[in-house]
Amino acid sequence: MPDEPLPTEAAADSIGVLGEQAVLARILPRLRPGDSALLGAGDDAAVVAAPDARFVVTSDMMIHGPDFRLAWSTPFELGWKAAATNLTDVAAMGARPTALVVAIAAPPSLDVAVLEGIADGLREGLAALAPGAGVVGGDLSASSVLTIAVTAFGDLEGRAPVTRSGARVGDVVAHAGARGDAAQGLALLFAEGVDATGEPSPERTAALRDREPRLLAAQLAPCPPVAAGVTAAEAGATAMLDVSDGLARDARRLAEASGVGLDFDGAALGDDVRVALAGAEDHGLLATFPAGSVIPAPFEVIGRVVDAPGELRLDGAAFTAVGWDPYSGWDGRSG
Amino acid sequence: MPDEPLPTEAAADSIGVLGEQAVLARILPRLRPGDSALLGAGDDAAVVAAPDARFVVTSDMMIHGPDFRLAWSTPFELGWKAAATNLTDVAAMGARPTALVVAIAAPPSLDVAVLEGIADGLREGLAALAPGAGVVGGDLSASSVLTIAVTAFGDLEGRAPVTRSGARVGDVVAHAGARGDAAQGLALLFAEGVDATGEPSPERTAALRDREPRLLAAQLAPCPPVAAGVTAAEAGATAMLDVSDGLARDARRLAEASGVGLDFDGAALGDDVRVALAGAEDHGLLATFPAGSVIPAPFEVIGRVVDAPGELRLDGAAFTAVGWDPYSGWDGRSG
Repeated sequence: MPDEPLPTEAAADSIGVLGEQAVLARILPRLRPGDSALLGAGDDAAVVAAPDARFVVTSDMMIHGPDFRLAWSTPFELGWKAAATNLTDVAAMGARPTALVVAIAAPPSLDVAVLEGIADGLREGLAALAPGAGVVGGDLSASSVLTIAVTAFGDLEGRAPVTRSGARVGDVVAHAGARGDAAQGLALLFAEGVDATGEPSPERTAALRDREPRLLAAQLAPCPPVAAGVTAAEAGATAMLDVSDGLARDARRLAEASGVGLDFDGAALGDDVRVALAGAEDHGLLATFPAGSVIPAPFEVIGRVVDAPGELRLDGAAFTAVGWDPYSGWDGRSG
Repeated sequence: MPDEPLPTEAAADSIGVLGEQAVLARILPRLRPGDSALLGAGDDAAVVAAPDARFVVTSDMMIHGPDFRLAWSTPFELGWKAAATNLTDVAAMGARPTALVVAIAAPPSLDVAVLEGIADGLREGLAALAPGAGVVGGDLSASSVLTIAVTAFGDLEGRAPVTRSGARVGDVVAHAGARGDAAQGLALLFAEGVDATGEPSPERTAALRDREPRLLAAQLAPCPPVAAGVTAAEAGATAMLDVSDGLARDARRLAEASGVGLDFDGAALGDDVRVALAGAEDHGLLATFPAGSVIPAPFEVIGRVVDAPGELRLDGAAFTAVGWDPYSGWDGRSG
């Protein structure tokens, strides 16, 4: 669906009618700056604590159309997911998340209640996944496409960052989090959360939520294992990354960065190995640990590191990665 | 103009055909991580130095349509301006800019050369305005609207941040940077950088660039006084902010935050006082200094702080602020 034209008569609660100051006055009280904010929203910039004289930073955008549909996600879920996906990138470095900044671009016709819902989802997602972390600042802009850009920060607490490049032959491959649930939820939405013409439908989605709550929640408001990032670092993880584009695709990135191969144990990947390897957006953590390590919960052993640079294997047999690409994976529709 | 539909046959150099990895391989070599990057792009997150155990952070988006027109700006200018506008927000806290993260959302049909130009502009803008600062990370997403989201970081070098709320009655009001040039450049573009139907026109813009290079550069690739932020802090500035929405509108924010009034000296504001007070996007720095301070260059004295909470005056007479609001100021067109 092309972007909707701006209505000629804007609703009284549209952000265009309210203006920036009034919108901020509605949103900011819903957010908490968090324990690391030395100076929060309200100035040109915020000031955030970085106790070990370094900070971890990552940034990710969610765009109406390729990344979410307003007929499928509630505003609360959008805020929750924007927090969750960025928090896992911080966790994947072995860091404790400390703060977010959030920039939102939205059509002037948008009801301010949508931004309030996003703010509520950000707050509750942070409270659930990274207690103590808050929103220290942000930006509001106009755009014909609702866009949520989050930048997240973390504290390494004196540890070295856990990168993608440290896996060594003989290491144990372990994973924390869901494998394929978010992709199954998305497949259900595309198949059954649409009307007869293929347009995303809130009514059909409501019925689907009743029937498949777990898989839909995995896609729309995931609970990734954020705290497991620090757990892995403390347990001596040699490499780690956030599994956002599918286990196989992201595993290949780790393999290539480390100059090793990964051999997955099919029996450890669950009933549907293809779903587990291909499914994107679970935001689990893939990590490697030295052989003989005690692998900490919630990590599960799913394979081992082998001497085959850049190669992925399943029970010893090489295979090609599959997964999501942000440009070629989008059909241009919104809804 | 509504967003263009995605072409059915994408060009060979479109980012959709190239895919994320190939696009990154074209962009990343054009960027420098800078002196503060302890771990740059390539992992889930970057690690940045924060020597005094704090960091300054600000975020701002530039959106095709409300914030720029592709018929007016070159990609290089977009990158330059995205850097410049965020660097001044860091400077306005009295901090030295250290690093940026850049998230870009773009239509899959976009030629990769546009992103290369944006990267070149970011690099050169940083080199000119904040030597030593670099791009430590980012994100690429698909969207029907070209969107550039920058988050910028700064180092307070042990100093207290300079906020909006510290101005005291009797302080001197000073300003560094252009006053009204960017707005005059934008007015020229709207009046003369368009074709007979009112659509932004590259040909008409080229002629305008030849005739009014200074005013067009002020709008399209500004050179705000970034280094003056640290200068002001070291000289004892009591309050400071980045003048992005117009001197009057931003001055009122400082006045309200500080619980004071500002009385401008009309003679100090140049030939056209209204242009100086209303013109948005110059990204100068407005600061207050204790009476009797030696006001450091490039700051110029333009008024004094008076006992009239939230009030703006011109040569003693109160007036109402004018300026830019991100929602109500956009007519919904792109071009």
